[in-house]
Amino acid sequence: MPSLILVLNAGSSSLKFKLFTHPKLELVAYGNVSDIGTDDCKFKGTVTKNSQKTEKSEKLDDHKHAMGTVLEFFEKQHICAVDDIKYTGHRIVHGGDHRTPAKITKDELEQLDKLNDLAPLHNSRAVNVIRIVLDKIPNSHNFACFDTMFHQSIPEYIYTYPVPQDAAKAQKIRKYGFHGLSHSYVSQEAVKVLDKPLDKTKLITLHLGSGSSVCAIEHGKSLDTSMGLTPLSGLPGGTRSGDIDPSAIFHFVADPSHIEKEHLSRAERVLNKESGIAAICGTSNVAEITKRTDKDAKLALDLFANRIQNFIGAYFVALQGADAIVFTGGMGENSDVLRALVVERLACLGCSIDKEKNKSAASQLDNGPVDISGPDAKVKVVVVATNEEYQVAQAIIDN
Amino acid sequence: MPSLILVLNAGSSSLKFKLFTHPKLELVAYGNVSDIGTDDCKFKGTVTKNSQKTEKSEKLDDHKHAMGTVLEFFEKQHICAVDDIKYTGHRIVHGGDHRTPAKITKDELEQLDKLNDLAPLHNSRAVNVIRIVLDKIPNSHNFACFDTMFHQSIPEYIYTYPVPQDAAKAQKIRKYGFHGLSHSYVSQEAVKVLDKPLDKTKLITLHLGSGSSVCAIEHGKSLDTSMGLTPLSGLPGGTRSGDIDPSAIFHFVADPSHIEKEHLSRAERVLNKESGIAAICGTSNVAEITKRTDKDAKLALDLFANRIQNFIGAYFVALQGADAIVFTGGMGENSDVLRALVVERLACLGCSIDKEKNKSAASQLDNGPVDISGPDAKVKVVVVATNEEYQVAQAIIDN
Repeated sequence: MPSLILVLNAGSSSLKFKLFTHPKLELVAYGNVSDIGTDDCKFKGTVTKNSQKTEKSEKLDDHKHAMGTVLEFFEKQHICAVDDIKYTGHRIVHGGDHRTPAKITKDELEQLDKLNDLAPLHNSRAVNVIRIVLDKIPNSHNFACFDTMFHQSIPEYIYTYPVPQDAAKAQKIRKYGFHGLSHSYVSQEAVKVLDKPLDKTKLITLHLGSGSSVCAIEHGKSLDTSMGLTPLSGLPGGTRSGDIDPSAIFHFVADPSHIEKEHLSRAERVLNKESGIAAICGTSNVAEITKRTDKDAKLALDLFANRIQNFIGAYFVALQGADAIVFTGGMGENSDVLRALVVERLACLGCSIDKEKNKSAASQLDNGPVDISGPDAKVKVVVVATNEEYQVAQAIIDN
Repeated sequence: MPSLILVLNAGSSSLKFKLFTHPKLELVAYGNVSDIGTDDCKFKGTVTKNSQKTEKSEKLDDHKHAMGTVLEFFEKQHICAVDDIKYTGHRIVHGGDHRTPAKITKDELEQLDKLNDLAPLHNSRAVNVIRIVLDKIPNSHNFACFDTMFHQSIPEYIYTYPVPQDAAKAQKIRKYGFHGLSHSYVSQEAVKVLDKPLDKTKLITLHLGSGSSVCAIEHGKSLDTSMGLTPLSGLPGGTRSGDIDPSAIFHFVADPSHIEKEHLSRAERVLNKESGIAAICGTSNVAEITKRTDKDAKLALDLFANRIQNFIGAYFVALQGADAIVFTGGMGENSDVLRALVVERLACLGCSIDKEKNKSAASQLDNGPVDISGPDAKVKVVVVATNEEYQVAQAIIDN
């Protein structure tokens, strides 16, 4: 049995896992626990070599119990013993200035706790999972891999916000960018269907999921990305506003003379949890939205496509041209309607789509990236299934 | 003596005026009062037909006294009697849903007072000037002309913010856009050096001044613009942040558990008055910045050019191509260095600049728009001296 890398990707009520061999990164097993803490809680696990699936509906109170179920699965299916897991990689949203994965020490854990202030909605659950692993897999080396790492190459004139610089530096207010593991992974995959190596290629990658972001990638490095200090800015998400006039926050409080702490927390919650595509048409499920014919559904799609197109135009200029537009993420991989809507207006950049290839792309993603460009496209269009967990494992090996 | 149109453009400590004939719009006299309320207060007036200039340094306490000095100038220089001014046009920043100039009635004044809530930093001084004119030029018809009017053609999928729609509609939270009088004026001028009529032309107009904005103009109508609910969003201004992660506001308050009204007002002031280009390099004077060689000056210019380029790319896609990029506003008209820096990365859109024409443009603007495109430019570059007051007078006649 080779040594193994377990990669954990913790959501607010979910725990995804993938188990890879070290250092070849062959996938041994994968699965996830969903709806943790609710009656709908479900475990799903698959052993790669024989495709054997395990499913279990059982209420698990928290991520600690979920983790227990994952390790039990490894044992019962004879996948591995706990001590075979030499490395555990944790996907963490906000890594501040980290450029590389962080090996977890006591000091590092304290640093990560501090970063919770920058990403209160995101980091704490992953840090919680690290503590669980330290307890349950005591001999594994733990690494934190950050969604922000990939964007540390963004130059100062782009990551700087023009706000008072003393305060900005003291409070670390700048663009960090997110979804970096995904943007990085799909850029490496996409070049497999292009004629150029990554270090000579300019890409605009679109991660379109419940949270969405765009990245301008120049020769393998992030030049700019649409999310900022937090994942709130940039594209609208399922329930996130994305970019709006910052002044709008002052207007959410009906009577500013009576402002209190609660108002501001409410504004933050409204912009993160009650806005976005769902605020326009009642759902953020794009498969559903593209089937609807009502005005609100049309508005949501047109608005979303418009904001995506704006970033593509901006990054096309920032990169001084692009070799390809790359779609990934739940919506980016699965919605041919959304892809067509986005590429529709890009003819002016030399970009076009092949209708048939676009329609069938989702079914072929297991075999690698799919080129869905039209015949004369100067800027190609590629669809890639993202794999953040693989990217985490790769980052641990590279480190 | 034909009847006359007086156009007033009130800043926080300034009052610009232009006097036109009705309906031919020949300029009869113009000038301004600067630094109102300070010891540096100065009046300058010019009579067009004989270029005779009047200058006076005298402390004027407020806009009421400034207005008195303007009318005194008209009388002493035998330009006109107060009763010859049949129409007075007021440039007002925020016009809510107004699509056309508003004739001032008592009801309308009350409406304008209400709009102060949407633009507290901007509207009240102009409304104050209307009240002064009602008193001092009692027989003149007053019209309010709004910077927002031109942008009422922006489609719903662009002007809508993806925030809870009930609250957005109740509180009128949407993109309005500003600098509309300027964008509209320069679009009409720019086509004079292009081969197409305005209603067949696609333009990206850049108003770059102490406040800056970009506009995508399709066939004479505003399709999108960079400012939003207020002038805060979009491009950085001299002291305005422009677009930043809306979450940053929550981070300006060091300890969110102690938030009070003052903190939010402070955040609003910081973003409007203590941010922007000046926050990066200590001044917003672009002529000065382009002469400096230090790191902060370079950062400020690179940052500003990057944000402008982003909007040009975005609007190039939104318009599905463009016939020309148009520069105007104090910086847009006068800084050849900034123009060169902006156009530098636009080769990928088919856009280029002629170095010599760019350098000499500012000196030729009195004769009309100047084409500074390079020889093979598919997308032309044009410089136009803006004239918001003319646009106000024109809007009154068209109304």
